[in-house]
Amino acid sequence: MNTLKLTMLDATKKRTIIQVGNVKVGEDFVVIAGPCSVETEEQTLITAQKVKEAGANMLRGGAFKPRTSPYSFQGLGLKGLKILEKAKKETGLPIVTEVLDPRDVSWVAEYADILQVGARNMQNFSLLKEVGKIQKPILLKRGMDSKLQEWLNCAEYILAEGNPNVILCERGIRTFETYTRNTLDLSIVPSVKETSHLPIIVDPTHSTGKLSLIAPMSLAAVAAGTDGLMIEVHYNPKEALCDKEQAMTPESFNSLMTKVFKLKTFMESL
Amino acid sequence: MNTLKLTMLDATKKRTIIQVGNVKVGEDFVVIAGPCSVETEEQTLITAQKVKEAGANMLRGGAFKPRTSPYSFQGLGLKGLKILEKAKKETGLPIVTEVLDPRDVSWVAEYADILQVGARNMQNFSLLKEVGKIQKPILLKRGMDSKLQEWLNCAEYILAEGNPNVILCERGIRTFETYTRNTLDLSIVPSVKETSHLPIIVDPTHSTGKLSLIAPMSLAAVAAGTDGLMIEVHYNPKEALCDKEQAMTPESFNSLMTKVFKLKTFMESL
Amino acid sequence: MNTLKLTMLDATKKRTIIQVGNVKVGEDFVVIAGPCSVETEEQTLITAQKVKEAGANMLRGGAFKPRTSPYSFQGLGLKGLKILEKAKKETGLPIVTEVLDPRDVSWVAEYADILQVGARNMQNFSLLKEVGKIQKPILLKRGMDSKLQEWLNCAEYILAEGNPNVILCERGIRTFETYTRNTLDLSIVPSVKETSHLPIIVDPTHSTGKLSLIAPMSLAAVAAGTDGLMIEVHYNPKEALCDKEQAMTPESFNSLMTKVFKLKTFMESL
Amino acid sequence: MNTLKLTMLDATKKRTIIQVGNVKVGEDFVVIAGPCSVETEEQTLITAQKVKEAGANMLRGGAFKPRTSPYSFQGLGLKGLKILEKAKKETGLPIVTEVLDPRDVSWVAEYADILQVGARNMQNFSLLKEVGKIQKPILLKRGMDSKLQEWLNCAEYILAEGNPNVILCERGIRTFETYTRNTLDLSIVPSVKETSHLPIIVDPTHSTGKLSLIAPMSLAAVAAGTDGLMIEVHYNPKEALCDKEQAMTPESFNSLMTKVFKLKTFMESL
Repeated sequence: MNTLKLTMLDATKKRTIIQVGNVKVGEDFVVIAGPCSVETEEQTLITAQKVKEAGANMLRGGAFKPRTSPYSFQGLGLKGLKILEKAKKETGLPIVTEVLDPRDVSWVAEYADILQVGARNMQNFSLLKEVGKIQKPILLKRGMDSKLQEWLNCAEYILAEGNPNVILCERGIRTFETYTRNTLDLSIVPSVKETSHLPIIVDPTHSTGKLSLIAPMSLAAVAAGTDGLMIEVHYNPKEALCDKEQAMTPESFNSLMTKVFKLKTFMESL
Repeated sequence: MNTLKLTMLDATKKRTIIQVGNVKVGEDFVVIAGPCSVETEEQTLITAQKVKEAGANMLRGGAFKPRTSPYSFQGLGLKGLKILEKAKKETGLPIVTEVLDPRDVSWVAEYADILQVGARNMQNFSLLKEVGKIQKPILLKRGMDSKLQEWLNCAEYILAEGNPNVILCERGIRTFETYTRNTLDLSIVPSVKETSHLPIIVDPTHSTGKLSLIAPMSLAAVAAGTDGLMIEVHYNPKEALCDKEQAMTPESFNSLMTKVFKLKTFMESL
Repeated sequence: MNTLKLTMLDATKKRTIIQVGNVKVGEDFVVIAGPCSVETEEQTLITAQKVKEAGANMLRGGAFKPRTSPYSFQGLGLKGLKILEKAKKETGLPIVTEVLDPRDVSWVAEYADILQVGARNMQNFSLLKEVGKIQKPILLKRGMDSKLQEWLNCAEYILAEGNPNVILCERGIRTFETYTRNTLDLSIVPSVKETSHLPIIVDPTHSTGKLSLIAPMSLAAVAAGTDGLMIEVHYNPKEALCDKEQAMTPESFNSLMTKVFKLKTFMESL
Repeated sequence: MNTLKLTMLDATKKRTIIQVGNVKVGEDFVVIAGPCSVETEEQTLITAQKVKEAGANMLRGGAFKPRTSPYSFQGLGLKGLKILEKAKKETGLPIVTEVLDPRDVSWVAEYADILQVGARNMQNFSLLKEVGKIQKPILLKRGMDSKLQEWLNCAEYILAEGNPNVILCERGIRTFETYTRNTLDLSIVPSVKETSHLPIIVDPTHSTGKLSLIAPMSLAAVAAGTDGLMIEVHYNPKEALCDKEQAMTPESFNSLMTKVFKLKTFMESL
């Protein structure tokens, strides 16, 4: 049974375009880059500067980290948000950061330009309803075991509360394959496009979990029609407090972005 | 990397036994039965009476329902909890009910004897931390895409906050098979037993999604060593507001319970 | 679309019962035990004697082994079959052995009482057609990625060629879980029973891949209604040429069988 | 344990390039197109002519079809091969066709330029050994439940028998997602490239099972670095005896090829 009323694509609806800073998500190509987690002011500011130079138009950074183990680094919280605020002031890049708790939505929204709902919280309906009550754009990641229809229904939760500004993000699904961390499902990109009017971006970092696969999967995502990319970059990956094996250096990110933008331009001419 | 400190089984730890009313979970066999959602006082009270007569020693019923679509019945909320309270007064059965939102934990805990964290919220770390701050027992369902170690780490979140009273519940994992709703993984029962000291029960209703499979899977779960069962029963399944295809009638539940208890006794003698 | 004509259960069909030696598969409880592969005469004969004493009523042993790597031990071939023949002569146990190649079917059938089609060959339609042309019973394992309907269609291939003697065998499906080798799907047992008239047995060894899980999963399979079990036993697991981590010793197998037979008798009384 | 000796990429090995007609697989971009199954001479010849005009450099067509049900069209066999031979004579396109049975390998090899081993037979080790004994190139499709290492081990079976001419083909893996038929795993393309020296192509038809997704997934595959594509085209899809919902018309295939070749050229300049 299809219960989508607001999220689905039909003749009465235009494709959603969401203004964030001076980026029109759904129209302009979005590149969200930055560290897995905000660790220090230096780390964040340098990385922010570097990803901006490489062409990123938004900065990501986790202040609240959903970690498998309770003993892993859980993020800096408010302190992390203040660092992101400073990075935004210095670079002009809008901030994308994850919110884990419905109680945090309103105040995190004061720092963030886009609030991310992570894969593990895709069906956290309390959180979805809460982010539906604000007007800030929401980046809704696909759950690791989520079918297309379930994912779109989660977007519907947000839209039904009054917030039309939802950006979907594919980040890999769980399969039997162990060579990659998860299996990046790029067919979801055109599948979303033919089913819904919402923009969709792709996260090649968390899906593959392998540094060597981020560049080819980024290019493949562009060719598949993604509206943008979300990539982890750390100015010194070896010292990262999380995901150190999969964060790109600013140099390799810069090199990848050159190719991504050229390919994007080419695809538009195709 | 195994990050379990409190949840794992080792020589220094006894198996956890949790007193709920006059049931010792982990020692006595637990049968939690009742409707998917609390709909009316009549429905809940009659069903509660019926499942008690059949041998259930706890009553389940949802006041807050996590539903795929925002337009599906979302539960009666506080009104539902008050109905459960009345059912408890009439039958003496402890109440098991799901909590979806960290803001609801403290007041739902006034009505519930066991708070359920559902499969979709297994890695909702805010909720896990919040239920870790109370002492009421927590029924932690396995996420549909959760590996054993990830599940136990979620229990660890609760224990690490100070609440040692965690009961695990297998409810099926997501696979390619479509004949059943999910695939009930009974091998997780002895796997949990050899890895952790926490009790584990099995939900044959949500895992199979098929009425005809509930009885054989309940018996199989007992033979696999489960500490209990959680089964949906509705006094009139055809009129149920959710899961109508998979709710047992009181009569078939009664017939199943007779077999379950006999088998449990037999297994102890084996 | 359901294309099953011969395999499905309907009012016109009785449940299939297959006579193998003095065992009526589908009526008597079947226990097929023995080594992963036939290695030496001593190993096979001693193991055969031991499993017979423990109550097994058929002997398994691989002469042709489907191995992930071409450099792993591939089985003794004809020499292995001759060893199995000798073990049969000494113990009276019927022989179950895998056939991998359609060219081998007719001559392997001279040694085997039941020919096994393995999980990797479930949809090897040439092999299915070939084993459909003989009358020897066929043990058809479920493919690791096989849905119920696909599996039954593979049985249909055999029946459609004229061989009605098919025994199904669940051996675990591929999922994301890595604690076990595969995920044993016991719900397939009653699912097969309500869909088809063919007998079904369960292989707890290959599905779990963990010695500690074989006993509880064997008992669970009996409670779920299996028509039998297939278990790897080696007289000296440490020296086994394949599957050494998951082969039971004759002693632990003997202990398990005592419980299995008691439980089976109990289940019939339930 | 990595048991790959011949298939893996290391400093001692060059990337494999396989000459088929005047196409160098692994160096030239390969486009294999044609009908799911050879049905009539007219259908095959017209389709062959059309795909050649669109830029395909090989013709595919099934003479032996592995079908889920024994009652589905199983292919024309030798008659189909003779039609393919005629199509080759008329168009000059090398022929790619599936072989299902080890007994058929030597004579099918007289008609085929590339023998395909299908997904269901990936671990049909008898067939792998048999195609390893000839020198014709083998197109080895990835099994629906196959991990990278298992797939490469199947290639190793062929190489170990003396046939170095193996082309890998990704065709989708089995996951929980039901919107697509299977999940196309494009990350396997760079994963194969960093692990093995063998060429790899992508089949967007069988993986997605959806006509609307073939074009975007073909382009994505090119961007991910595939050595070629394999696409089903039928001159009149509505009348196709198999896969009618997913076969492209010659017109849409032609339009896609224009984009594919432009993109391929662009990617080489990137």
